Formats: sequence, C-alpha cells, structure tokens
Amino acid sequence: MRLVIALGGNALLKKGQRQEAQIQKQNIILAAKSIAQIASHHSLLITHGNGPQVGLLALQAESYPDVKPYPLDVLDAETEGMLGYQIAQQLKNVMPDREVVALITQVVVDKDDEAFQQPTKPIGPIYKLSDKNSLVERGWQLVAVGDGIRRVVPSPAPKRILELSAIQLLLDTAMIVVCAGGGGIPVVESEDHQIEGVAAVIDKDLTSAMLATELEADRLIILTDVDAVYQNWGEPNAAPLKQATASELRQYRFEVGNMGPKIDAACRFVEHSGGIAQIGALEDLAEILAVRKGTQIMAG
Amino acid sequence: MRLVIALGGNALLKKGQRQEAQIQKQNIILAAKSIAQIASHHSLLITHGNGPQVGLLALQAESYPDVKPYPLDVLDAETEGMLGYQIAQQLKNVMPDREVVALITQVVVDKDDEAFQQPTKPIGPIYKLSDKNSLVERGWQLVAVGDGIRRVVPSPAPKRILELSAIQLLLDTAMIVVCAGGGGIPVVESEDHQIEGVAAVIDKDLTSAMLATELEADRLIILTDVDAVYQNWGEPNAAPLKQATASELRQYRFEVGNMGPKIDAACRFVEHSGGIAQIGALEDLAEILAVRKGTQIMAG
Repeated sequence: MRLVIALGGNALLKKGQRQEAQIQKQNIILAAKSIAQIASHHSLLITHGNGPQVGLLALQAESYPDVKPYPLDVLDAETEGMLGYQIAQQLKNVMPDREVVALITQVVVDKDDEAFQQPTKPIGPIYKLSDKNSLVERGWQLVAVGDGIRRVVPSPAPKRILELSAIQLLLDTAMIVVCAGGGGIPVVESEDHQIEGVAAVIDKDLTSAMLATELEADRLIILTDVDAVYQNWGEPNAAPLKQATASELRQYRFEVGNMGPKIDAACRFVEHSGGIAQIGALEDLAEILAVRKGTQIMAG
Repeated sequence: MRLVIALGGNALLKKGQRQEAQIQKQNIILAAKSIAQIASHHSLLITHGNGPQVGLLALQAESYPDVKPYPLDVLDAETEGMLGYQIAQQLKNVMPDREVVALITQVVVDKDDEAFQQPTKPIGPIYKLSDKNSLVERGWQLVAVGDGIRRVVPSPAPKRILELSAIQLLLDTAMIVVCAGGGGIPVVESEDHQIEGVAAVIDKDLTSAMLATELEADRLIILTDVDAVYQNWGEPNAAPLKQATASELRQYRFEVGNMGPKIDAACRFVEHSGGIAQIGALEDLAEILAVRKGTQIMAG
C-alpha cells in the first residue's frame, strides 16, 4: 500500500516540553520507531508540522538586533531543513536498508484566496499591548488575546505542489520521502510563472490530503496526541468514533482543539480518491493501520 | 553534458554586504540568471556554501536566552532548507519549464578522521578573550585571533553521500537538483549503521568533487568571486592560469584566500574521473563553459 503519514507538530515537541534540540530528537526517534513497525512492503510519504519550531526561530531572529528577522517563508524553509533532516536520519536509523530522502517543498496558493483578506492563524508568542506599534511597523496583523496581542497570518488553501513529480519518482522507486513540512512553503505564482514566497501558513493536513490524492495513496493517516476523533469531546458523554463516512463527519462540529482541520483534510482525501483516511495517536500507528485503533473515515 | 556547479557562500552573500534576506535573495537571483544562460540541454546539479548563513543562525540562537542553541548539524540543516528553497525558487523562475528540487543532504565522515583531533575550520564571530570560560563550557574549541578568540571545528573529508541514489534518479530524469549545501550535514556512522550528526563543517568543494565523481559528471565548475586561479596571487607578477593539469597544480602552493581547497577539490575530481574541472567567477559562467574564461584543470 502507499501510505501518507502526517506527523503533528505537537508529536515532535509535546505541549509543555522545553524546545531543546535533544528533546525534539528523542520525540523524533519515538516517531521513527512507530513508523518502522509498519514500514515493510509499504510505500511511505511522511509529512510533518512545524508550529513550535518556526515560532522558536522567529523569536531567536527577533532577539538578535543586527539583522532584520527573515520573512516567514524563509523561516518555514529553515524548519523544513531541520525537521526533514532529523526525521530522515532517524527513519534511516530504524530502517538501514531503506533509502530515505527529505525534500524542500513549495506549495502554490491562490493569491486571491480570501484568507489573505482575513488572516486567522495565530503564530508566535503573546506580546504586550504596549508592543503594538513596533509590531505593526513590521507589517504584522494582530489580534487581541486576553490582555495581550498576537500575530495572525493567512492560512490559504494549498493548490499545487511544485515538487510533485520528484516526490512521485522517489516514491515509485521505493524510497521513503519526507516532505511538505509545516504544510509546505507557501508561494504565489504570477501570470508569467514567477514564484514568490508569502507570509502565510498552509494547514499541513490539507497539504497532506492533497499529496495523498495526487499520489493515489491508499491511506492518509493523520497522527496526533489524541487516540481518535471524539463525539461530544470534553462532555461527560464523550465517545470515540471508530468509523464514519465523510458525509456523516461533515454534519458534526469539531471545533475543540485542532481536530476540525484534521477531519476536513481526511474528508477531502476520501471524497477525491479511492482511499481511506485514519486519525489517531502516533504511538498507535500499527494498530491504526490494522484498523484496531483510531478513527477510520471512508467515502460516502 | 552533466555539470556539477558549486556556488561559493560568498557568491550568495558578498563580503561586506549586510546579511539581510532581501540582499541574499537578489544575489541568488543573479546566480540563477547566470546558470539559466547555460542550462539548456545540460544535466545540472547545484551545490552551495553556507558559511555566512550558518554563522548568522548561530548568533541568533545565542542571543535568545530561553533555549540552548541547537547543535551545528541542526543549524547546517536549517541553512540547507533556507538556501535550497531560495536557490530552487529562483532557478525555477528563470527556467519555468524545468523541474527543480532541493534535497537535504547528509554526508558520512570517518569518525577517526584526524580532523577531529585537530579542528582547523574557524566559524562564527571573533569573541572577546574575557568570554573564554563561557565558550569553553559549551564544549567549543577555540583559537586566538588577534586580540580575541574564535571557535574552530573539525573539517573532516567527505566519505559517502547518503542521498546519492535519490540525486542520481532525479538528475537522470532531467530535473535540476540543488543539494549538499554547506558541504552537506556531517554525520558519523556506527558499526551497526546508526547515523548521528557531528559538530563539523565539510568543505563544500570536496563534497562537490565527490558528487561530480560518483555521478560521472563531465564538468565540475567551482564558482567564486575571483575570475581564475592566479599564480603568485597578490604579487606584482600575479598571472591568471588559463589551463593546467592536476599534477602541475599539485606542485604549486595556493594558500592565499580560499583557493587552496578549491584547487584540491578540482584536482581530486579530474584525477578520479574522465571529466574537466573549472574555477572562475559566477558572472562568467557562460564564458567558463565555453572555455574562454576561468581556469581549466585537466587530468595529467
């Protein structure tokens, strides 16, 4: 089978953990071991989040006074390099016989995407209200968060993956590909085919769903820190969903936590392909693949 | 022809230029235009330095107090992401019909390489002598530079490129590949095939020569900010070398500037392959390929 496996940014650096290199590495080793259990005989594409990591790079750049912080697309590229390297290395360590390669991925978004008019994705830390003027001078858009303010950026929909042919070629040769980190580096394309990075964050699960569809994957497996999709999450009658159709899921509302975008991505994949989507916990990957754990989402 | 083109780190950020993102981007646009002039009908592998860039990331990480700076191999991976992205994007902009892909590259070095006993490669800024204790506490090795001190790291020889099969596959399909940024991320391999990053810097021209040899390139073209190899550089009788054999060059000494390692890399390539190596200025690339400019180095 061809599997697209999306690792949540929080699976690489868990909530509350310090952002030390060594801790991130240990989490990636755990993720690699989980993937190695199910890797044999499958074609594997690994995508990953980058939220905590790009936030740290931005803070580091801001605290160094001599050079203006680099734009968000460049910081995204830095995290694709860092996490792509670490994930590829640890996958190779648990599967020395497989070829593993990490690719820098650019994802074209529509420059008229309405997300650019209405930035919604919060990134980075909460600033004091008194910092507002200096932040606005950077060209940032801000929202109020409690007593403070936070930067928000657009989250446009992915339209086209520039490196798709390369990814396909490598997968077809049985290589394990790591790509589309942080949803891919968002770029816009002019009418004369000039590409330029934009300050935005693409949802990594939507990019993963698009990759899974274009590459005709059998399964899109979205891994997070929750063991399944829950109905009535946070209520006394909360119950994990073992399986559901896309149209059933489209009727529910899953606002709480990060589950909404994951369900949307899973539904898009099953609606546009012959495949199945699954959502569950990183450590349950083998059981998810065997359809004993997680939530299974089918067309219909 | 198959060409391996090595872009010097100083070609991407010229001496004396501020390390701003926009300046780096403009230099990369110039490099891409230079490459586009000669690209048609050739198989192209582009490598690049990362000296100024990894230095900046290290400074930014050091000036942010809450998180310990990440190790050098991880910073190297970040620069491979950043520069790989920017170079691939600008190459695509000048050649919209070609597929361009940037790869994260890990390069195995020998853990018994004598460079580990004797670090020689200076990286980062010059520190005050009074900072010595805190720098030693980081595990750094230091050398005296004028009134101050500077970090030195080992520069071991490249032995094996982990992603070689992927690079070969992509080149064979006429894609332009950007890889081995900063000489590649240095890793050591244990007897049971476990790979781990090390704090070292591989000479990017040596990695480029190894790639050119393994991929059976026709030409290795090393681009820098000097228009040729000079005999008696800096003397009144300085004269550019139009062509030379590897054994002739091995007899001279080229200590001044960065020319020594470039000549060594060029000689290694011509000694181990049927190809020709050329050294010259980035803006002269078309003339170098036509053997009208630069220094041409042949076997013998």
